[in-house]
Amino acid sequence: MFSQSPSLGEFDLIQHFFKAESDAMLSEENLPISLGIGDDCALLQTLPNEEIAITSDMLVSGKHFFADTNPEWLGHKALAVNLSDLAAMGAKPLGFTLAIALPEVNSKWLESFSKGLFAIAKTYSCPLIGGDTTAGPLNICITAFGSVPKGKSIRRSGATIGDDIWVSGSVGDARLTLAALRHEIGIEKTDLELIQSRMHQPTPRVHLGIALRDIASAALDISDGLLGDLKHILKASKVDGRVFLAELPKSAYLLQQSEQIQNQFAACGGDDYELCFTAPSTQRETIAQIGHKLNLALTRIGHIQAMKNAESSIELIATDGNLLNEQETATLLKSFDHFA
Amino acid sequence: MFSQSPSLGEFDLIQHFFKAESDAMLSEENLPISLGIGDDCALLQTLPNEEIAITSDMLVSGKHFFADTNPEWLGHKALAVNLSDLAAMGAKPLGFTLAIALPEVNSKWLESFSKGLFAIAKTYSCPLIGGDTTAGPLNICITAFGSVPKGKSIRRSGATIGDDIWVSGSVGDARLTLAALRHEIGIEKTDLELIQSRMHQPTPRVHLGIALRDIASAALDISDGLLGDLKHILKASKVDGRVFLAELPKSAYLLQQSEQIQNQFAACGGDDYELCFTAPSTQRETIAQIGHKLNLALTRIGHIQAMKNAESSIELIATDGNLLNEQETATLLKSFDHFA
Repeated sequence: MFSQSPSLGEFDLIQHFFKAESDAMLSEENLPISLGIGDDCALLQTLPNEEIAITSDMLVSGKHFFADTNPEWLGHKALAVNLSDLAAMGAKPLGFTLAIALPEVNSKWLESFSKGLFAIAKTYSCPLIGGDTTAGPLNICITAFGSVPKGKSIRRSGATIGDDIWVSGSVGDARLTLAALRHEIGIEKTDLELIQSRMHQPTPRVHLGIALRDIASAALDISDGLLGDLKHILKASKVDGRVFLAELPKSAYLLQQSEQIQNQFAACGGDDYELCFTAPSTQRETIAQIGHKLNLALTRIGHIQAMKNAESSIELIATDGNLLNEQETATLLKSFDHFA
Repeated sequence: MFSQSPSLGEFDLIQHFFKAESDAMLSEENLPISLGIGDDCALLQTLPNEEIAITSDMLVSGKHFFADTNPEWLGHKALAVNLSDLAAMGAKPLGFTLAIALPEVNSKWLESFSKGLFAIAKTYSCPLIGGDTTAGPLNICITAFGSVPKGKSIRRSGATIGDDIWVSGSVGDARLTLAALRHEIGIEKTDLELIQSRMHQPTPRVHLGIALRDIASAALDISDGLLGDLKHILKASKVDGRVFLAELPKSAYLLQQSEQIQNQFAACGGDDYELCFTAPSTQRETIAQIGHKLNLALTRIGHIQAMKNAESSIELIATDGNLLNEQETATLLKSFDHFA
């Protein structure tokens, strides 16, 4: 827990730097942290009738980000993906630990990384409360903690037949950015500059998650692709889903691509970090109000139906209104794979 | 949070394996976990008037362990070092997350790693509740959670003048093992086999930590070396310490080495994961009883005194009763350095 021996020199400086930023945040805001960095453990205060939501993500250079990614974006994203998991449970962020392996002590890189990290930490009042620093191939592991009133968490298993399926924001832009950076598709340089934050600096839907506590029957965040992730809800809830491809919310940039790319990126592109959730149809008006209040598009893309087979499945309705057959669905569903 | 896309194949198997072990443990024992692996977050139940202690450690191949280390030992150690941090705060283990980067899917390696991991998890009723699996250079990041009654945590900052300084078990055997494996010293092969568990499979002093809640004024676990770690207590408590080298508890194996090696390994060897703590002298009898009850040696090695200079320091008393001078102390204090 940030407790290296005094001889570490440069690493001490890093730890002191992280600690200074963390201490400043803890002293400025009234947060439920009894003890931050500097002891064997951090101490988190608890409230009566709350549960602690916990999530952990590991980001590896060359797998989850390019080695030359702007470290400020990386600092943002490393925390954002965890806040996104908290959001998907309806949890309010409390704090996080950072364990980081660094190949070398590059103070410029670290300053930039910290800038991005602490900026998003402040936005969501989620302080760094502890962690570990070591030498090794670049690896960033953040574990984040949130608070949710007992019984109010939004799980994947609550979707029921007849529920609407919703998605926040727009989907496919992170995949569009990746495709542009890989030169798989052509895109105007100025457009790329405008959309690349969708991949590099995703916005965790924290306020939406909290607002959905008494509204949504199930939720998750979209990290591996909308349809692949939706399947987790269907499986956990033992139901099927029907999704209308024409209803998937797409940005103006994605709408400039071919229909095939639009559908594939929106339906299966990873790294969007939007929330996909289900809710009874009686909640449509309330959900519209939440979207209005948060200035965030919330789009109904389909509904939940009874299971037809032993395994949960998704029926996809093409833009022309026809049901996609198995072969067409399989082609579309090919998600990205960290090991591919 | 263990939520990869279905196409991941082999990685799915790993996750299901971890999940099966975790689910079994959660169903067998009555643990305060509302939700384990399989959603966006795990959910931890809280009790009134408790605080949650949180610690995170990252173990990197080639830095914290040899690449060919027995994976069963590694699974044990990865959790043990975190349980040791909880112990140092007086916290009772509640659960942990595991984020792991693997260069390849080697089911034999994983089976062995899991065996060690879940064995110690069961010993301390500390279930795996979530995490992440990815491809990448071998890296193991565990974040552990514990419970401690409000105001009862043992911090580094509570040592006061006149307190005794104590250490549990014996110190220096992990360093002795490392020296033997590096052929820096000679040691009988049978002896090495007997002591190497001190380095590879350290015992976190969880029960001792809990027993010391109302007894110790300050505590930490010895990961980087007794004296270097003790300095963290002194610094946090704004006091000096006096330590008698002759009093350091050494195993029969270490006692076979030269006096210089004995002192250096016991005083500065890392990876012991014993607890070093301070307590008022009025607690000596109680501490003796705790040691007796836990069948664990608890040794008084010195005491706390007023600060002489602007920075906290340790006065070392040699075996002959003389105070070590600055040069002698500096030579002894050279701890190991992950970046050296």
